[in-house]
Amino acid sequence: MKLLIVGGVAGGASAAARARRLSEDAEIVVFERGPDVSFANCGLPYYIGGEITERKKLIVTTPELLRSRFQLDVRTRSSVEAIDRTAKKIRVRDLESGREYEEAYDKLILATGAAPFRPSIPGIDLPGIFTLRNLHDTDQIKARVDHDVKQAVLLGGGFISLELAENFVRRGIATTVVEKNGQILTPFDKEMTTPIVQELAARGVTILLDQFAESFEPSADGLTVCLNSGQRLSAQLVILGVGVRPENKLAIDAGLEVGPRGGIQVNSYLQTTDPNIYAVGDAIEVTDFVSGNLTQVPLAGPANRQGRIAADNVFGRSMTYRGTQGTAILGVFDKTAAITGASEKVLRRDQRPFRKIYVHPTHHAGYYPGAEAMTLKLLFDPTTGQVLGAQAVGGVGIDKRIDVLSVAIQAGMTVFDLEEMELSYAPQYGSAKDPVNMAGFVASGLLRGDHPQVDVEAVLATPAVEQPLLLDVRTPQEFATGHIPGAMSMPVDELRSRLGELPRHRMIATYCQVGQRGYLATRVLLQSGYSAANVGGGFKTYRLFHPSN
Amino acid sequence: MKLLIVGGVAGGASAAARARRLSEDAEIVVFERGPDVSFANCGLPYYIGGEITERKKLIVTTPELLRSRFQLDVRTRSSVEAIDRTAKKIRVRDLESGREYEEAYDKLILATGAAPFRPSIPGIDLPGIFTLRNLHDTDQIKARVDHDVKQAVLLGGGFISLELAENFVRRGIATTVVEKNGQILTPFDKEMTTPIVQELAARGVTILLDQFAESFEPSADGLTVCLNSGQRLSAQLVILGVGVRPENKLAIDAGLEVGPRGGIQVNSYLQTTDPNIYAVGDAIEVTDFVSGNLTQVPLAGPANRQGRIAADNVFGRSMTYRGTQGTAILGVFDKTAAITGASEKVLRRDQRPFRKIYVHPTHHAGYYPGAEAMTLKLLFDPTTGQVLGAQAVGGVGIDKRIDVLSVAIQAGMTVFDLEEMELSYAPQYGSAKDPVNMAGFVASGLLRGDHPQVDVEAVLATPAVEQPLLLDVRTPQEFATGHIPGAMSMPVDELRSRLGELPRHRMIATYCQVGQRGYLATRVLLQSGYSAANVGGGFKTYRLFHPSN
Ligand SMILES: Cc1cc2nc3c(=O)[nH]c(=O)nc-3n(C[C@H](O)[C@H](O)[C@H](O)COP(=O)(O)OP(=O)(O)OC[C@H]3O[C@@H](n4cnc5c(N)ncnc54)[C@H](O)[C@@H]3O)c2cc1C
Ligand SMILES: Cc1cc2nc3c(=O)[nH]c(=O)nc-3n(C[C@H](O)[C@H](O)[C@H](O)COP(=O)(O)OP(=O)(O)OC[C@H]3O[C@@H](n4cnc5c(N)ncnc54)[C@H](O)[C@@H]3O)c2cc1C
Ligand SMILES: CC(C)(COP(=O)(O)OP(=O)(O)OC[C@H]1O[C@@H](n2cnc3c(N)ncnc32)[C@H](O)[C@@H]1OP(=O)(O)O)[C@@H](O)C(=O)NCCC(=O)NCCS
Ligand SMILES: CC(C)(COP(=O)(O)OP(=O)(O)OC[C@H]1O[C@@H](n2cnc3c(N)ncnc32)[C@H](O)[C@@H]1OP(=O)(O)O)[C@@H](O)C(=O)NCCC(=O)NCCS
Repeated sequence: MKLLIVGGVAGGASAAARARRLSEDAEIVVFERGPDVSFANCGLPYYIGGEITERKKLIVTTPELLRSRFQLDVRTRSSVEAIDRTAKKIRVRDLESGREYEEAYDKLILATGAAPFRPSIPGIDLPGIFTLRNLHDTDQIKARVDHDVKQAVLLGGGFISLELAENFVRRGIATTVVEKNGQILTPFDKEMTTPIVQELAARGVTILLDQFAESFEPSADGLTVCLNSGQRLSAQLVILGVGVRPENKLAIDAGLEVGPRGGIQVNSYLQTTDPNIYAVGDAIEVTDFVSGNLTQVPLAGPANRQGRIAADNVFGRSMTYRGTQGTAILGVFDKTAAITGASEKVLRRDQRPFRKIYVHPTHHAGYYPGAEAMTLKLLFDPTTGQVLGAQAVGGVGIDKRIDVLSVAIQAGMTVFDLEEMELSYAPQYGSAKDPVNMAGFVASGLLRGDHPQVDVEAVLATPAVEQPLLLDVRTPQEFATGHIPGAMSMPVDELRSRLGELPRHRMIATYCQVGQRGYLATRVLLQSGYSAANVGGGFKTYRLFHPSN
Repeated sequence: MKLLIVGGVAGGASAAARARRLSEDAEIVVFERGPDVSFANCGLPYYIGGEITERKKLIVTTPELLRSRFQLDVRTRSSVEAIDRTAKKIRVRDLESGREYEEAYDKLILATGAAPFRPSIPGIDLPGIFTLRNLHDTDQIKARVDHDVKQAVLLGGGFISLELAENFVRRGIATTVVEKNGQILTPFDKEMTTPIVQELAARGVTILLDQFAESFEPSADGLTVCLNSGQRLSAQLVILGVGVRPENKLAIDAGLEVGPRGGIQVNSYLQTTDPNIYAVGDAIEVTDFVSGNLTQVPLAGPANRQGRIAADNVFGRSMTYRGTQGTAILGVFDKTAAITGASEKVLRRDQRPFRKIYVHPTHHAGYYPGAEAMTLKLLFDPTTGQVLGAQAVGGVGIDKRIDVLSVAIQAGMTVFDLEEMELSYAPQYGSAKDPVNMAGFVASGLLRGDHPQVDVEAVLATPAVEQPLLLDVRTPQEFATGHIPGAMSMPVDELRSRLGELPRHRMIATYCQVGQRGYLATRVLLQSGYSAANVGGGFKTYRLFHPSN
């Protein structure tokens, strides 16, 4: 067996190492255009920021070790230029010498990744404008940052941009994020990004939404970024973080099928339209685990596991990739946001029926010092209760809940299963009723009809004549510090004795701070003959949609 | 509906609050012997240690709030003395006034909990000997600690004892834990407790295994604890942490069935042998989710959820409790140990076939600062790969992995599912291949036959003539700092060129530090015609069984 692998990082190196374990005698060659293989892409922003101090830590495995330990023929600075599928050969260009040569294969794995998108706008090639993908980019950016950067502009409000924003601030740089959409972090629903926006703002990062760069101009001390709004931003450093595009040229030139967004098409065995050629990682189109739709999810976990699966199949196993849930996480300063499965906007786009709930529990027992608040949003099927997606934002403990919910999605579990999850509890770690249980209770209550809930945005969008009475059941003190416009105040503990003050024939939308007292109020009202529903997630959820300044 | 609830803490208060939400007009009375309801049992050690500074934080909900918000008739200092099942009445004793009265019920929920066991040994009633269950105990212990305790002895090496040990050390007390079994933390397999033992020792806690107190004697400055070994320990404070016993007297007197270890028998609706009487929490016998056997698991999460389920059934729903996985977690100083599902010893006792693996990954990407090592042990069905149990010990991130694995057990997932879990990854939170994925890889490799593994203890127990050759494939430096007795050193990177030095017809047991290089060595050997297997978990696992001093 002669196996050639194009690309030597997450997907490629994983496939190569696994391939060697499967076969001692296979000839395995890894071609990598760059000087490095097996490096920690995901650590690059933190090396720039100084959190990771040693550059060599970013090299997970050296080419030498891949050679000595795994007997891999690792060829760095070697660009694969073409595939001859009929002859089962590739053409390789040695970037050091310029020499070109051919290499035959029995099987080929494409792990070419995705390249940062460089929009073709005037001035894009001016010095000081970078993308960040590999160590070379990192060295260049870091050299600038180490030298003298007072202002930086990050184009795009995605994961990498925001990680860089944190690291630039850590380096004392005045940082602006420019995002052409109406929200940062597009995989998330917008309201769930509010705490991240607030955290960034609190740390001095400027976020400009609904704006994009139209051109770049050189200036006395660097660059001027000219936005569509007319605003002009000075910067000594600009990073383009406006998404990535699958590196599909090899595949297209060889006549392999690619999807509408450029991802190389593969079947569940990760085989391209040529059965001798596999493809993995950021370069491919994958099935969305929840919707079954085709999508592109450039993440390291899937790339690693796909590399392993492709190697298995090359050696005659029959392993399938079950699709991607899009589980992703972002840390910015002391905040974390994470997601798994479908977002509300994707469900809406796909016109898939769903219900949603919000809870705002603390990450561990409230009575133990250091409890941090989180917001957890759960999306589920209105009929079966099957969990479709989850998003969480807060401080500590976000990763745990999203991982638990990711497994629940993988297992096809329902909100009723969440009620019964037995999660580890001691006061430093969680609560006797974990946030995931709480989300299960609130969602199950909704589906069982015990806990009717209305979305605050739906209430506010209702024409005035049909609008329910918004009943704020918090304390007068809480009401005074801010409430939903038009709401009437009646603390939950007085509700039973003041029922007479409420309208008999108008829908009442109760709310409190997080939803819990509002739920009790709704129960009281319903059982006293009123029509009522609880504003899900209460005032805290309202504030996600309508941040105070 | 008139619902009476005996016990006003985890199970009882949860049942009461849920009952009110289900029914506005039910008459709901909560009887609690003590002065407090709804308090944070699990926080008590941390209040004694000073981590939780305000006593009032330990009161989760006051009786007043339960009255005003939930319209619950909460009667503290009220002991339920007897149940008359025929007349459907209970007899209550008001502990303030001494008055006794009767109260009729339609339905009754017993949430009486479990009482710390007080062995009847000479001197047990001397001053300075306490158990810890409620705020009263806490106040007494704290008063002593605040006053003058130089030495404390904790009898029993369970969760509460070890939490107290940490808190006593925090208060500057010389602390000794005396455990009559050969290990602390009996729910865990012994080797998994090694890091906890080492952490406690490093913090100055003395642990005496295989010993127990035979008597207590008064001494000049407090007490002498006389152990079976003849050893005599001076102490000003002794805590009995030798387990709890279900508070079943009411139930037994009323003719309800209890199990062999005293837990009140209930069906899956949490109904006792009298259909009008439910029982929940520490007082009951529950089904072990994995084995199906009856067991007693005194934990807050199950108690809370059982309370909720019992209330549902009282009001005509049909909710079942699906059994307990025994998910539990302990923090001592900077270490955490957690467990879910079956332990190895329980599987052995039940003679259930199983396989096990160990991995020792870091809690997040190794290249990001602060990565902490953990040990994760996974137990699974040898045929189907179904996950049966997991234990983890280490620093940060233990709770997350055990929670993820708890859900996997709940969902009936297999080790092959763990391979494909899509867990959130950014370098601060995890790895592209999470510890849970890694455990899945290693377990799946074992079941698929790719990665034969031997247990280090089995190898060492093999008669010399049949013993495999122990091959240490780490570097000579690693070998020099400690190795398994009798092992031969041959670094993995030299293995392929030195195969000739190895015996053709003797089994070779490879090992490295954590198992990963040993795995590669096994692959190389197997494919080169040798018989080989990898010592699962490598030298680190060996060290769990054979700690160095
Ligand atoms: C700054 C940054 C931070 C990130 N953070 C995270 C994170 O926190 N979590 C997460 O899950 N993911 C993160 N990612 C994404 C993650 O790194 C990628 O999803 C993953 O590396 C994809 O693996 P891959 O093997 O498909 O592609 P890559 O890792 O990009 O490797 C592809 C390689 O193929 C080489 N190549 C391409 N074409 C050729 C050719 N024709 N000939 C030879 N070689 C070729 C390229 O040079 C490249 O090195 C981050 C990415 C970046 C850039
Ligand atoms: C110090 C300590 C630390 C703990 N830490 C943890 C932890 O970290 N994680 C975890 O999961 N669990 C922990 N637990 C266990 C957890 O607190 C219990 O599992 C849980 O409280 C059990 O709930 P319950 O309602 O069954 O019983 P309890 O909470 O004990 O409540 C029972 C109540 O019933 C009352 N009662 C009994 N009989 C009568 C009667 N005849 N009349 C009137 N009242 C009566 C008792 O006074 C008692 O207050 C800890 C327990 C203790 C003591
Ligand atoms: C590291 C790299 C070269 C792949 O090497 P690898 O040996 O397949 O992967 P890992 O080091 O993660 O180890 C996984 C293997 O070791 C085995 N293993 C892990 N822990 C083990 C243990 N304690 N005992 C025995 N085996 C173990 C696993 O079973 C698995 O082998 P398998 O696939 O045959 O089942 C590749 O993943 C890589 O280059 N990563 C860095 C690049 C990257 O991922 N970038 C994006 C993220 S920053
Ligand atoms: C607190 C206590 C009185 C029970 O009260 P409770 O109202 O049932 O429980 P919680 O406060 O945990 O809240 C859970 C309820 O609020 C609802 N809820 C939680 N968050 C919500 C939100 N954001 N919006 C709407 N409803 C919410 C849940 O759905 C659940 O109601 P349900 O059971 O009807 O579905 C009881 O659990 C107790 O006394 N606990 C302390 C004692 C203890 O557990 N000790 C051991 C551990 S230290």
